[in-house]
Amino acid sequence: MAAKTYDEYLERLKKLNRNVYIAGAKVDRTEFEGLRGSLRVIRETYDRANDPEFEDLCTATSHLTGEKINRFTHIHQSVDDLLKKQLMTRLLAQRVGGCIQRCMGTDAMNALSVVTYEMDQTLGTRANQNFVDQLEYWQENDITANCAQTDCKGDRLKRPHEQADPDLYVRIIESREDGIVVRGAKVDNTTAPVSDEIVVIPTRFMTEKDSDYAVAFSIPADTDGVKMLVRPATQHRRKYLQAPIAEIGDGESFTIFDDVFVPRERVFMDGRGDPRQTAYAGFLALLFAHYHRHSYTGCKPAVSEVLAGAAALVSEYNGIEKLDHVRDKISHLIGTAELVYAAGQVSAYRAEKSESGTYIPDEVLTNAGRRLAGEEIYNEYKVLADLAGGLCATMPFEEEFFSEETGKLANKYMMRNPKISAENQHRCFRGIENLAVSELAGVMQVAGLHGGGSPQLETISMMARYELEPLKNIAKYLFGIEKNLPRYERPSVTPRKQLERFRKMFGGK
Amino acid sequence: MAAKTYDEYLERLKKLNRNVYIAGAKVDRTEFEGLRGSLRVIRETYDRANDPEFEDLCTATSHLTGEKINRFTHIHQSVDDLLKKQLMTRLLAQRVGGCIQRCMGTDAMNALSVVTYEMDQTLGTRANQNFVDQLEYWQENDITANCAQTDCKGDRLKRPHEQADPDLYVRIIESREDGIVVRGAKVDNTTAPVSDEIVVIPTRFMTEKDSDYAVAFSIPADTDGVKMLVRPATQHRRKYLQAPIAEIGDGESFTIFDDVFVPRERVFMDGRGDPRQTAYAGFLALLFAHYHRHSYTGCKPAVSEVLAGAAALVSEYNGIEKLDHVRDKISHLIGTAELVYAAGQVSAYRAEKSESGTYIPDEVLTNAGRRLAGEEIYNEYKVLADLAGGLCATMPFEEEFFSEETGKLANKYMMRNPKISAENQHRCFRGIENLAVSELAGVMQVAGLHGGGSPQLETISMMARYELEPLKNIAKYLFGIEKNLPRYERPSVTPRKQLERFRKMFGGK
Amino acid sequence: MAAKTYDEYLERLKKLNRNVYIAGAKVDRTEFEGLRGSLRVIRETYDRANDPEFEDLCTATSHLTGEKINRFTHIHQSVDDLLKKQLMTRLLAQRVGGCIQRCMGTDAMNALSVVTYEMDQTLGTRANQNFVDQLEYWQENDITANCAQTDCKGDRLKRPHEQADPDLYVRIIESREDGIVVRGAKVDNTTAPVSDEIVVIPTRFMTEKDSDYAVAFSIPADTDGVKMLVRPATQHRRKYLQAPIAEIGDGESFTIFDDVFVPRERVFMDGRGDPRQTAYAGFLALLFAHYHRHSYTGCKPAVSEVLAGAAALVSEYNGIEKLDHVRDKISHLIGTAELVYAAGQVSAYRAEKSESGTYIPDEVLTNAGRRLAGEEIYNEYKVLADLAGGLCATMPFEEEFFSEETGKLANKYMMRNPKISAENQHRCFRGIENLAVSELAGVMQVAGLHGGGSPQLETISMMARYELEPLKNIAKYLFGIEKNLPRYERPSVTPRKQLERFRKMFGGK
Amino acid sequence: MAAKTYDEYLERLKKLNRNVYIAGAKVDRTEFEGLRGSLRVIRETYDRANDPEFEDLCTATSHLTGEKINRFTHIHQSVDDLLKKQLMTRLLAQRVGGCIQRCMGTDAMNALSVVTYEMDQTLGTRANQNFVDQLEYWQENDITANCAQTDCKGDRLKRPHEQADPDLYVRIIESREDGIVVRGAKVDNTTAPVSDEIVVIPTRFMTEKDSDYAVAFSIPADTDGVKMLVRPATQHRRKYLQAPIAEIGDGESFTIFDDVFVPRERVFMDGRGDPRQTAYAGFLALLFAHYHRHSYTGCKPAVSEVLAGAAALVSEYNGIEKLDHVRDKISHLIGTAELVYAAGQVSAYRAEKSESGTYIPDEVLTNAGRRLAGEEIYNEYKVLADLAGGLCATMPFEEEFFSEETGKLANKYMMRNPKISAENQHRCFRGIENLAVSELAGVMQVAGLHGGGSPQLETISMMARYELEPLKNIAKYLFGIEKNLPRYERPSVTPRKQLERFRKMFGGK
Repeated sequence: MAAKTYDEYLERLKKLNRNVYIAGAKVDRTEFEGLRGSLRVIRETYDRANDPEFEDLCTATSHLTGEKINRFTHIHQSVDDLLKKQLMTRLLAQRVGGCIQRCMGTDAMNALSVVTYEMDQTLGTRANQNFVDQLEYWQENDITANCAQTDCKGDRLKRPHEQADPDLYVRIIESREDGIVVRGAKVDNTTAPVSDEIVVIPTRFMTEKDSDYAVAFSIPADTDGVKMLVRPATQHRRKYLQAPIAEIGDGESFTIFDDVFVPRERVFMDGRGDPRQTAYAGFLALLFAHYHRHSYTGCKPAVSEVLAGAAALVSEYNGIEKLDHVRDKISHLIGTAELVYAAGQVSAYRAEKSESGTYIPDEVLTNAGRRLAGEEIYNEYKVLADLAGGLCATMPFEEEFFSEETGKLANKYMMRNPKISAENQHRCFRGIENLAVSELAGVMQVAGLHGGGSPQLETISMMARYELEPLKNIAKYLFGIEKNLPRYERPSVTPRKQLERFRKMFGGK
Repeated sequence: MAAKTYDEYLERLKKLNRNVYIAGAKVDRTEFEGLRGSLRVIRETYDRANDPEFEDLCTATSHLTGEKINRFTHIHQSVDDLLKKQLMTRLLAQRVGGCIQRCMGTDAMNALSVVTYEMDQTLGTRANQNFVDQLEYWQENDITANCAQTDCKGDRLKRPHEQADPDLYVRIIESREDGIVVRGAKVDNTTAPVSDEIVVIPTRFMTEKDSDYAVAFSIPADTDGVKMLVRPATQHRRKYLQAPIAEIGDGESFTIFDDVFVPRERVFMDGRGDPRQTAYAGFLALLFAHYHRHSYTGCKPAVSEVLAGAAALVSEYNGIEKLDHVRDKISHLIGTAELVYAAGQVSAYRAEKSESGTYIPDEVLTNAGRRLAGEEIYNEYKVLADLAGGLCATMPFEEEFFSEETGKLANKYMMRNPKISAENQHRCFRGIENLAVSELAGVMQVAGLHGGGSPQLETISMMARYELEPLKNIAKYLFGIEKNLPRYERPSVTPRKQLERFRKMFGGK
Repeated sequence: MAAKTYDEYLERLKKLNRNVYIAGAKVDRTEFEGLRGSLRVIRETYDRANDPEFEDLCTATSHLTGEKINRFTHIHQSVDDLLKKQLMTRLLAQRVGGCIQRCMGTDAMNALSVVTYEMDQTLGTRANQNFVDQLEYWQENDITANCAQTDCKGDRLKRPHEQADPDLYVRIIESREDGIVVRGAKVDNTTAPVSDEIVVIPTRFMTEKDSDYAVAFSIPADTDGVKMLVRPATQHRRKYLQAPIAEIGDGESFTIFDDVFVPRERVFMDGRGDPRQTAYAGFLALLFAHYHRHSYTGCKPAVSEVLAGAAALVSEYNGIEKLDHVRDKISHLIGTAELVYAAGQVSAYRAEKSESGTYIPDEVLTNAGRRLAGEEIYNEYKVLADLAGGLCATMPFEEEFFSEETGKLANKYMMRNPKISAENQHRCFRGIENLAVSELAGVMQVAGLHGGGSPQLETISMMARYELEPLKNIAKYLFGIEKNLPRYERPSVTPRKQLERFRKMFGGK
Repeated sequence: MAAKTYDEYLERLKKLNRNVYIAGAKVDRTEFEGLRGSLRVIRETYDRANDPEFEDLCTATSHLTGEKINRFTHIHQSVDDLLKKQLMTRLLAQRVGGCIQRCMGTDAMNALSVVTYEMDQTLGTRANQNFVDQLEYWQENDITANCAQTDCKGDRLKRPHEQADPDLYVRIIESREDGIVVRGAKVDNTTAPVSDEIVVIPTRFMTEKDSDYAVAFSIPADTDGVKMLVRPATQHRRKYLQAPIAEIGDGESFTIFDDVFVPRERVFMDGRGDPRQTAYAGFLALLFAHYHRHSYTGCKPAVSEVLAGAAALVSEYNGIEKLDHVRDKISHLIGTAELVYAAGQVSAYRAEKSESGTYIPDEVLTNAGRRLAGEEIYNEYKVLADLAGGLCATMPFEEEFFSEETGKLANKYMMRNPKISAENQHRCFRGIENLAVSELAGVMQVAGLHGGGSPQLETISMMARYELEPLKNIAKYLFGIEKNLPRYERPSVTPRKQLERFRKMFGGK
């Protein structure tokens, strides 16, 4: 069995009930103009898995069934899996000019594989059993899944149970034998409107009083009570000069869970039914973020490369490519791409195998890499705009280049480097307009900053893992405060060490 | 006589021939939806001049007629005029959330007032006489003028006369007694589609072989042969929550001069007719850029303040306004605003009175200020996105907040700080979406970087003015290479010194 | 009467008792090798006041006596005074290659002139009377004064009265009719070892429980119980190539007050004797910091100019001065100098006259300017090292260039630009070594960052003054949350407004 | 056979002729006070190789003899060798608080192993035979070697043969059968005064006219005609509080080759004797720089960690370690360390095996990593000074803390966190003074910027290797200019590809 095809996926989507709301109407996911861009992106993940040139990268062997599956449904069983996931993410992101969108589901599944296993081992739950059952279904059907993590959060300085409205974080309002009923909403859900499944996980650490909020599950995207308020972002439709960059789009869902029933076999965490599970909520939240940041070490280099490629191309077309400041600026985009990717690679090489068998990349380095990417993203857009010049923001619409009255003149005055045709000059600036001066560009900037967590959050995660004492020991030794400096190992608290604490907490080994 | 009203201006625009092309059609400037935003911005410049609260700032006394005129048509006669122009720019820019768009014409007029005067004095032309005649007309009618400066430029490493196509810079193809005929195109022309007049000036230094390209004039916007290919940028039209920020827009013209006749009395520079005038082309180009950069020391602080104000507001709504990192980030936006404004103020205080009577602000400092603004602009958007969070890029459309099926839920989950109504939370994020995650935002980022010249150009201008020898003398004194350090004056080549060189060149005093 | 001469000052210093401790010995201030550099700097403040070329700048007219005095002893009576103080600071700092060292005393006096006046008016104290008496003495004798502000501070998260050792902030241990007895220590006291007088002021806000710590006074530098533990920083003594940069030095005192009696007429604040005065402690601390930061808008541009001048000179000597990246880097040093100076100038233009008659510059802008300088200082050293190349850190000692065996060879291989003599090449690199690769350079880097308060503190001060509501109002207006936007004034809490609160607190008007 | 001991090395040094000139005298390398710091650093490289805890890292197996040797004399035979070299460099640099100084020789040897092999294969020289003979001697005796690369360079815009004085680059003045005679000088030679051997290699690309300058060889440090003009940099000698940081020092040599004879068997490149060899000069220069930059990916993370460790320690002692801005700043130092190290690691993983058998790390990534380190170095010192506060630059000398008169008071007022003894507080600030506010600190800053090449040079190297076309292809595909985007490989020109060009040039395969 190979990965499924895009058409098979599309067939499934067509059968879903209408629960996507856009501009006041319920729309058909597969027909609505504004969602074509999202479908175009997801299509890449199916087509490449079925493309001999990319097959080795975009498929994997299921550890459950031994079958060949789409890598987006795979649980990382080795360092090599992590490296291939990272490279796949980079290559596909280059092909869609940015976010490949499907990794959220993959990252959620990997985090769940670790945490549900731990819960079963320590608490005697059957969360992992449920998870594995779902996973088999996902792998077999090549499911596209969204991860709905970010809660509304209300007052950001208050915990879930302290909010004026208890529903501002998704919560379990009822836990019964056959399942749970949940209420609340999740925001910033990329992929949701074109997903088969919605995976819900917590967004932060939970205290005992927040046990109703410790919830994780997976449900079909059209489950009763699920309402997706979707904001699509697309490009102006091209009439004459078709180009991949103009076909790409994004759809973000504000997903409301209006008292939704989740059958027990789809529940992975139920803090209301079993408050002990609450202890794992924060760990799951962070582990998903961690896998997602590691995915960013794949896609973000591609974003830098897409912007650098456009910057290099327009510099050639503008005739300035050999100027020192131009090369210096482009080299810094390349440098960021290389460093962020290297961070992800070394994180993979240093990955730790969890008890569940799933590999977890190094957290300090992954965060350092993702943070650099986030800190640089606006600057990268600045470099592209700098080298392109104002025209990328002021160029007339396509029609003016093709109308009888103005077409010839418009093309005449587009000319720069005489070796490049007016049409290609036009294509280049039109492409940069799409990339950097469009509504979608604005969304991509924000995503480049916040996706997987803002630099602020990466600093917090990084420092939560990094132990400062061994670092201070270097200073103590050099300053004569301590006599010896033992051979140094880079200090960090690994997930494994953390999970051991949980086990002890619950009387385990 | 006071400034004219917006309605009087609108009446004039209505009468112009249709030569604005958008998306394949010739459109009516005052009716076309996509240009309403531009009109809304220009309106502010008329309304405030007629508003008692702003009158002192937004009007001035004509040095030609002694009449009260709109300050946008005024030639700076004193330091105080420069300070008021700067403050007016800041306050109006705050009111339209960014670029006030009308300053280009003002800046071009001021530059022309200096250069045409010099040419008449030195070369015996009657350029200044033509200019003054036009100015009187402008002041009397409160004309909104566009300055068309940026040529297509073709291969950027070649001079105008070296281009493969000689029309890639606007040039005079015929100079006769009654006027000149010009051909070429100018790009990045903000305001042009809603302007009464188009002022054309050169874009760079010219050599003797480029004399056909040394051209400056002013013509009505609908002159025969002028074709404006216009790219409008607007916001999604609001249905429910009206707000100034959503009404603002921009229209950029790619203006083609398809063999346009300019009557002699509207010509301010004619290098084809009189090659000596070519010597002044570069000076005019730079002097306009200089006035325009000084205008940026007014509007750019407002842009920083608009972004900082939004950042502070959303921080309050998100409940994070007291956090250290939040205050630090906002304080840096404020700091940039303050420093850039101070640079413009001191440039005004140090202004030099030219022979023509027009005041010219300090160039080194103006460039240092404008450059800081340009270098920071992308970072400022980053700070706003950082403090707002992802929702500014992912929020559902307005309709979802007002529909029967989803409105109540959407509003319920928008709630953050319980003291702020859901509607105001919504308004805040919608406003930030307009400000930072929209097509117009992309245009404003590029304009913030390139408008008036990119940081690269400001460095070049600054260093062209700044004499390094007196600075090196400090080092020579301290290092014992020279015995004495004379009392230091900040070294710079003023416009006056430059113009004296021209005069000598042409046998003058 | 003019300013005193350096020799008169030196005579006074000679008469002081020995209480300066360096490397285990009590040293003679005027003879000790390590303090010559400090004296050389202070000398500049006397010589220039007596130099016709600088007289207008370096002297002022006393508002007490109408006599001509050294500006370093003057209380700012006008905007012009502030502007002249700023320019004087810049010019003298250029001449000594950095910190002019004497401004601390001046800044403390100006702050005291405001605060003591207020206290007298509001509390009926006679602090201002004491202050004026002292001031007359200072002005008449052209006193060099140190301001001792920074306490040891112990645990930085605890208030003075909460410390394990109550002496970690300077405190009054006894308040009697004829004076007070103080105990504690002040650190980071530049100028102290070569000062006539030590002015002590508080370092932070005080609560009621800290009233013993609300203390300000001035005493002769050799008062019984005062012990100065001094760290001098100098350059390697030159044997052959004398140069001003090599003569400059710094002496920092860790000043201990070992139960020192201060006569009542020298006391300016006594929170132990009168706890109401405690309310003014923080205001005095901040006001001194404010004047000092305003002084930095004079000296810090000079530091940038000294570094930029050296960078430009060595670029010429290295033959790289025309390269784009070189000009870009130097232009940024110049830009910082210009912007910081402009910030100080506009702060002066916007100065507020306090009730006491003393002028107080704008606080928001002064802080924004000083902060930029502090944030850039290390980068400026980086640029100099970048353009100089490694040799500034690796050049052989002077002797090797003059010895028979190696001198000829050393000079032969120093040659770069053939137009510049080997000796001048040598002087240039030796000077940069002094400036950027020496112990004193390290001190100057730290001072450039922390002097007058680190960027962190400037952010805090700036935001304490800046009212965010008017800024948010811009956003509220643009976003449609508020209907109107009143004409904007830059929001800030001025010292005057603050003092009015104090007056009300104590039942005043 | 193991690595040699420090004592054996010292014995060898003692036997060298006196040719080290410091402050006008010829000094004894092993006795001169100013060179003790250099010896202390080198000692670490012998002691650790003989320390069981570090043996696996600091020794290697010679590919020539199969013997166990000090890794500093090893030629990298595998990816693992590169990884171990990088880790060794990091750990030893942590132990000496910065530069481990001995890597230059190692890096030169590795570069020579590749280039001499290529020359023999392509040109039929016996350079590699000479090299291997030398290498055996080095490995057997555990030789410490300096690499003398940087020429005086005179006018930086002229080539070697164009200089006013032909000796401004080291050149061969005579090539005879038994050897060559060289003249010139090399600068910035760390380690030279305490080295057994001096390895000389070219500093830049050479044209045919520069063939006399294409020279490489190795000679004993005391060879006739070699004169080392040495600048030592050390710390103030401690009297009471001994600490490793205070024992460390640096000695930089300005090494003059006053017509030095080099026997043929020690010559590795002789462009005068055989002008074809000139083609390899630039390649050798760059390959050494490349190995050296890869070494920086080991030491520079240690420098960041040393500074971060000191920053974390002083933050704890100051009681501010939990503040957000403190953690943020420290996390950025850690982030830089992690990213730079990861760059070096991945460069090793991607290393290419040259024909000679020596492994060459990835050049693009190594340069990106080294550049980041260089760009950040001054900022890292700023962070340390920021968190330490002014006292690190103003603290009294040691004696004041131990004298009867002031010791008790000095210690009393040093107290901060009551859990930390006054002595340890003292040690901490004294250590930071050594680290960041000393002459040696200045040298380390410059070395951190320029060592292995400034950021400017790394950009040039990086872009020389990186092919932009494949990057532009991404843009061309996305913009619709090219239909397909082939599976992407990170584009770069490897050394192997470059060497193939040479071979073709000389008629090879």
